[in-house]
Amino acid sequence: MGLFTLVESDLAAVDEVLTATLTAENPLVRQVAEYLLATSGKRLRPTLVLLASRFGRHPEAQAVRVVAAAVEMIHLATLVHDDIIDEATVRRGQAAVRQRFGNPVAVLAGDYLFARAFQLLSDTGRPDIVALAADIVFVMCQGEIAQNLSLFRETDAEEYRRRIADKTAHFLAQSCALGARAAEAPEAVEAGLARYGHHLGMAFQVVDDVLDWRADPGRLGKPTGGDIAGGVYTLPVLSALSRPEWASALRAQLQRKPVPIEEVRQVLEASGALDEALAYARREAGQAVEALASVPAGPAREALVALARFVVERDR
Amino acid sequence: MGLFTLVESDLAAVDEVLTATLTAENPLVRQVAEYLLATSGKRLRPTLVLLASRFGRHPEAQAVRVVAAAVEMIHLATLVHDDIIDEATVRRGQAAVRQRFGNPVAVLAGDYLFARAFQLLSDTGRPDIVALAADIVFVMCQGEIAQNLSLFRETDAEEYRRRIADKTAHFLAQSCALGARAAEAPEAVEAGLARYGHHLGMAFQVVDDVLDWRADPGRLGKPTGGDIAGGVYTLPVLSALSRPEWASALRAQLQRKPVPIEEVRQVLEASGALDEALAYARREAGQAVEALASVPAGPAREALVALARFVVERDR
Repeated sequence: MGLFTLVESDLAAVDEVLTATLTAENPLVRQVAEYLLATSGKRLRPTLVLLASRFGRHPEAQAVRVVAAAVEMIHLATLVHDDIIDEATVRRGQAAVRQRFGNPVAVLAGDYLFARAFQLLSDTGRPDIVALAADIVFVMCQGEIAQNLSLFRETDAEEYRRRIADKTAHFLAQSCALGARAAEAPEAVEAGLARYGHHLGMAFQVVDDVLDWRADPGRLGKPTGGDIAGGVYTLPVLSALSRPEWASALRAQLQRKPVPIEEVRQVLEASGALDEALAYARREAGQAVEALASVPAGPAREALVALARFVVERDR
Repeated sequence: MGLFTLVESDLAAVDEVLTATLTAENPLVRQVAEYLLATSGKRLRPTLVLLASRFGRHPEAQAVRVVAAAVEMIHLATLVHDDIIDEATVRRGQAAVRQRFGNPVAVLAGDYLFARAFQLLSDTGRPDIVALAADIVFVMCQGEIAQNLSLFRETDAEEYRRRIADKTAHFLAQSCALGARAAEAPEAVEAGLARYGHHLGMAFQVVDDVLDWRADPGRLGKPTGGDIAGGVYTLPVLSALSRPEWASALRAQLQRKPVPIEEVRQVLEASGALDEALAYARREAGQAVEALASVPAGPAREALVALARFVVERDR
């Protein structure tokens, strides 16, 4: 990504741990792992772990790399399971694992990745680190469950924010906390980094929700309007629904089967709901940067600031 | 079950932990958890944890009950996910979770149960305990993956044994080890209990595979011959296939779609393959009892001996 020259060599080392761990094993896992690792994911979570570790007394600790690999494994596990949950066919421009290998293999591969991650984490001998990671999966499941319960339903923006805080922002917050913890950063610094991660995650998810409408499907790697097609009402939709002048037209569109994606998109643009969501994401990114006030200045902090900017400016 | 008066009150306490943990939470999890807990599972794994804990210096430790609840959660998670993997419709006489709630909810509920279990476990502050539990899920996934790769394929008995050792016996072995570890039993006792659990698990799975052919479907809670219908070749089938006088007839039956369950059953009975499998299970149960030689005599050991007998005599 260019932004992360600071941790580029560490990230390459983490990728080696991932590849070595997942491809040395049994043939089915190897097949799925190679399929997953071949697509160029952003490696956002291990990057956060590595950058956060720079504020600790022991950024070179083996635990840091282990944690960075483990959070990516947890992330890959949730991607594979999410695709079953969303009945997705495409992910990152290629067939979703469930589409390519079937639901049974996707369930197994996800469970395997979770188990492998917790094995790596428990090898650190640090129960506090395991607890932070277990908390990631737990809170994320709560967010996913909340999303599942709210499908095809109008919720208020507050409920949406709680849901994405659980589903996405908490994972990024804990990735920062884990990096700080593994490298033995002071508590106040860990807390500041976790706040940064939370706001970064809120910004990240809202931008994701906007890109679902605005991105070039080729670059995004999946079709436009996928959320609404699956019944997930994200911030732009909820915000347009809260405007009396747009609500009834939009509501009528949402009740048609299939939902007329292009017409909805036009309403979201014309109503300013997409711009408003993006403005919200920018405010969250701003709060992320503010949270870094309690964190020592230096190249790692600059990289985190640049990352917050990147998250709201990205086009995929 | 009557066998376990020794740990009956502890088991009731574990059930309370389970119910309190899983039903106090969000509505979807509550629904699925109540559905799962209402069916009368055998609670075999928490029973092993509790019995094994009796050989430790601190059988009353809070960690023991936590571990007992956590292994049952892990077990419930795997049941829910297994039903997706096997595309099962019925489990314990009622609709499988995936059938009742759909695959998306089943994936989520399983992940949630895994995460909750690891949260409970990491609260003990004992990385060695977390490591044992992560190992359960990891090895079980390997066994499931091996089974998935061997569907509709003739494998040798050795491969079958390795597969069920990973899929089932290891979980029972680690449940014993976890109970001993949580209660601070001596290492040699923990090792003896783990060997007991391994052989008990081998016996348990082979009996399961025999019951899939011989049990009253009403008592078993699922139709007869489910394994072969799903392409899982268990010991009785593999053993009949290894006999020249039965192999070609059986092979022809197995190639028909759908497989003629009743005809296959007759071959497995007539060839003696079912009886032979049961004899194998009895030998494993005997080895389980032998493994207890290194474990102090007393009511807990007697209960474990009785459990080994029960496992091979049960009819469901």
